[in-house]
Amino acid sequence: MLSNPATKYRAFPTIDLPNRQWPSRSITTAPIWMSSDLRDGNQSLFEPMNVERKMRMFRTLCQVGFKEIEVAFPSASQTEFDFVRALIEGGNIPNDVTIEVLTQSREHLIRRTIESLKGARRAIVHVYNATSPAFREIVFGMSKDEIKELAVSSVRLIKGLCAQQPETEWVLQYSPEVFTSTELDFACEVCDAVTAEWGATPANQVILNLPATIEVATPNVYADQIEWMHTHLARRDSVLISVHPHNDRGCAVAAAELGLMAGADRVEGCLFGNGERTGNVDIVTLALNMYTQGIAPGLDFSDINAVARTVEHCNQLPIHPRHPYVGDLVFTAFSGSHQDAIKKGLAVQDKNGVWNVPYLPIDPADLGRNYDSVIRVNSQSGKGGVAYLMEAEFGVVMPRRLQVEFSGEVQTYTDSHGGEMSAQDIWNLFNATYLEAPVAAMRYVEHHLFDHSVTGSKTRVQGIRIGVEVNGQPMLLTGMGNGPIDAAVHALQTVGIQVQVRSYEERSTRASTTAGDAQACAFLELVSAAGGPERFGVGMDTNIVTASVKALLSGVNRLGLVDLLELEGEAA
Amino acid sequence: MLSNPATKYRAFPTIDLPNRQWPSRSITTAPIWMSSDLRDGNQSLFEPMNVERKMRMFRTLCQVGFKEIEVAFPSASQTEFDFVRALIEGGNIPNDVTIEVLTQSREHLIRRTIESLKGARRAIVHVYNATSPAFREIVFGMSKDEIKELAVSSVRLIKGLCAQQPETEWVLQYSPEVFTSTELDFACEVCDAVTAEWGATPANQVILNLPATIEVATPNVYADQIEWMHTHLARRDSVLISVHPHNDRGCAVAAAELGLMAGADRVEGCLFGNGERTGNVDIVTLALNMYTQGIAPGLDFSDINAVARTVEHCNQLPIHPRHPYVGDLVFTAFSGSHQDAIKKGLAVQDKNGVWNVPYLPIDPADLGRNYDSVIRVNSQSGKGGVAYLMEAEFGVVMPRRLQVEFSGEVQTYTDSHGGEMSAQDIWNLFNATYLEAPVAAMRYVEHHLFDHSVTGSKTRVQGIRIGVEVNGQPMLLTGMGNGPIDAAVHALQTVGIQVQVRSYEERSTRASTTAGDAQACAFLELVSAAGGPERFGVGMDTNIVTASVKALLSGVNRLGLVDLLELEGEAA
Repeated sequence: MLSNPATKYRAFPTIDLPNRQWPSRSITTAPIWMSSDLRDGNQSLFEPMNVERKMRMFRTLCQVGFKEIEVAFPSASQTEFDFVRALIEGGNIPNDVTIEVLTQSREHLIRRTIESLKGARRAIVHVYNATSPAFREIVFGMSKDEIKELAVSSVRLIKGLCAQQPETEWVLQYSPEVFTSTELDFACEVCDAVTAEWGATPANQVILNLPATIEVATPNVYADQIEWMHTHLARRDSVLISVHPHNDRGCAVAAAELGLMAGADRVEGCLFGNGERTGNVDIVTLALNMYTQGIAPGLDFSDINAVARTVEHCNQLPIHPRHPYVGDLVFTAFSGSHQDAIKKGLAVQDKNGVWNVPYLPIDPADLGRNYDSVIRVNSQSGKGGVAYLMEAEFGVVMPRRLQVEFSGEVQTYTDSHGGEMSAQDIWNLFNATYLEAPVAAMRYVEHHLFDHSVTGSKTRVQGIRIGVEVNGQPMLLTGMGNGPIDAAVHALQTVGIQVQVRSYEERSTRASTTAGDAQACAFLELVSAAGGPERFGVGMDTNIVTASVKALLSGVNRLGLVDLLELEGEAA
Repeated sequence: MLSNPATKYRAFPTIDLPNRQWPSRSITTAPIWMSSDLRDGNQSLFEPMNVERKMRMFRTLCQVGFKEIEVAFPSASQTEFDFVRALIEGGNIPNDVTIEVLTQSREHLIRRTIESLKGARRAIVHVYNATSPAFREIVFGMSKDEIKELAVSSVRLIKGLCAQQPETEWVLQYSPEVFTSTELDFACEVCDAVTAEWGATPANQVILNLPATIEVATPNVYADQIEWMHTHLARRDSVLISVHPHNDRGCAVAAAELGLMAGADRVEGCLFGNGERTGNVDIVTLALNMYTQGIAPGLDFSDINAVARTVEHCNQLPIHPRHPYVGDLVFTAFSGSHQDAIKKGLAVQDKNGVWNVPYLPIDPADLGRNYDSVIRVNSQSGKGGVAYLMEAEFGVVMPRRLQVEFSGEVQTYTDSHGGEMSAQDIWNLFNATYLEAPVAAMRYVEHHLFDHSVTGSKTRVQGIRIGVEVNGQPMLLTGMGNGPIDAAVHALQTVGIQVQVRSYEERSTRASTTAGDAQACAFLELVSAAGGPERFGVGMDTNIVTASVKALLSGVNRLGLVDLLELEGEAA
């Protein structure tokens, strides 16, 4: 079955770069960042984002601090075109943000693309054609001259169309697609022709984006290619060099970093590395890598968990637990020697001094996160730890972040009580922490879902009424919403409890193997609208809605928001 | 909330390397690979592997082709110690595989470590102590001389203990922990002292492992550090330089590759990048990166899905859908222009020629995978595609790999029938493909679980009896097993149907919001024991066991294994 790689695959040739400079350089300032989450990221999703998700992603990108955002491929579908119109006509684009759109080098697509931008304050038109030998020969059947002429004539058309919409400040971006597999002198020739056709000047720079459309070599080769272009392009002062690495060989972050050292000014990528196949370069990792070297990246990830959960919602793809900076397990130390070193490092860390703590390349607090020291509590049988026992003995499969959170509760308990905990001890602690509300907290009594039409109208009224007890006093909360959790969150708002749901999971406990007597176990990860750390709430019931409502109340109690309720009650 | 990075973090200093060679080099041969899945990988899991999982991982590592495997930290726990003994006493170590174990530089731990290796044919003893300023000053309170003396005296002790167990061929490995943050001249001084103390020669080389315990700089800096050591170490011919990158900045693969160009001989890492925090370097990506450059890596990933599912089982961590080479989505093209280019590339690809297909840096067939061209079938409402409609209209949330598989069925259908498919069309196709067995296939009729004690003994008998129909003929299959799926797989073996379960998911359909009338939907990913592609089976029922058994039969039918059954029946 195994092919012989020596005959089937060819090594990528090295670049002749006699006076190579980049290996002696360092990154000292942040580049211009361009997010392609709504374009390259979106087109590679199983289910492309709907308008609600696209708008939510756009707002998040603006909040994080992106000033250039590729928002669509407007000629590809009506949905894409309409989203650009909704951004412009809805006044959704902040004054300091420039939108960018992509088009192929085809006349009717270019016309449609410029049309989609009518009325924009400022826009980047991103046109591309593939320039590599394989694409010229296999895909298009075109000569080098024809490929160059296609690029130049497309730019000429764009220039003419832009002149007809003078209310917009226009910027041109050109990408020789599959740059990494293109002969460098030909890539340079096409880029120079584009620069000349657009009439770029130092005050009106053209963006030349040099993509690793497919990553084909070690990242030093990409850096060599960028430095070669940086030193050979005509009118270098009228050009911004942009890099756009993909991650086929797992080196996209390195390719971007070495590319910046080699002369690039700008980086295109996606949050947490979404994008075609193995993804575009992860801009979060790049920005935080700079941050740990003392360079302000110009992007704000001080509440990285909020960004992560939004991106997971929009892309419907998980972020891996070992993803740099953001993964659930990257600030978690399991080994005793690691925990000891971190503890000693934190003890001597001067709050105003330079960060220097073993095993932690960044202060988790700078990302709104905590360092989690996880101990493994062995039962007498010697089997596994907390999560294992909860699953094996009680059928509860905890979400990973709840495992981390509850492990902290276990550690606090053993620190004060000493010794090992039995499975029953762990269950009792879980029960007391999540399932049994203390008297002063909010206890679930009952709930009722309603869903009816308003008489003589098509309007439907959907919501929930929840009966609770606080300090033994019954209360009735009512909220509207198109799902039970959404409605229950609104019901809590009526008594001044403001929470956001960061994640939701519900599954049957594995205690039984028949559906009839299975309990549902709901896990809600909550955060107070006023900020602060996330907390999980847990609810169990044979009815899955009841389990969810109980989990919501459990989380509210865990966040300590019921005191606020009492204040609110007194004020009323 | 935001800290000022300019005052809180310090840039990593550049390395003074006037005659730098590595940027002009290429990788031309595979290094020595060392798997740390059972040590660095295992210690960073929420639930460390039990003996069954450890043994399964060890066998997989041997099958893949690793010749050096770090199997434990034997002095850390009885479980770790016992696993080493089980490997040696059980005769589980192939003749061409050397096991490695880790120990801190402390006398009682070293003694216990050497004891654990009694009777091994060949073993690598891996001893370490941290050498960086932060560890010397904050964690240990030791001077440079004391740190060096600790390393040397530990090696002296190991040498003495090894001499008492002459039946074993001993190899020494030393790691200056946190090498990347250690002054290079001091790291070199300690390493040279270790080499001298061991009495290393070209015929008895010492392994000097230079870990990026925490990744602290761009990967070119790591390469500079390795080249510096490569050119400054005494007795270079008696030393193997090993790299051990972690992925804190997302550049571990690049660091390993540039490190090899800089003179390293050996790489330590884990499958798919498991390991502390952000993980160790991913050896699979490294090996396949070499493969695509025409270099035989010496590791066999020609059935990468089998390796992936085993590793997910052992680590209880998912592999990300965009992980290079192995992720569920990395050979999936959604965009029409990508699909078109790939189609043209595959059409002209000479089976015996050099691989050159747009957007595919490797032939998926070399990994036992397929290229999936996914079309998005829009319903008339304009909402989403297949997976969206299945979830929104019918409450079925498909596993990602089933989405890919079923999308292929949808494409085949639309290619032959033309036009758009409605939600109902898609459901009908799903039903016909997975839920309704054709007459000639194996249909579910009923099942019965049994679980009783054998009279007068403590033995329990657990299993399943399944009533099925094939071509209208009833059959009764019986199998033992400690769970219903396990037992049902054994029941099928009694009529010659040999399948392996690659993955299993089961959840309630989202059609209803109360538990009472929820259907369970079970998804089993199967592969024939004779090899070939994976296929999903799906089963729905209010009883979760019934749904699982139906899913198993559905998968057997999808794999076309029932013909085999008829042959078997005739033979009987």
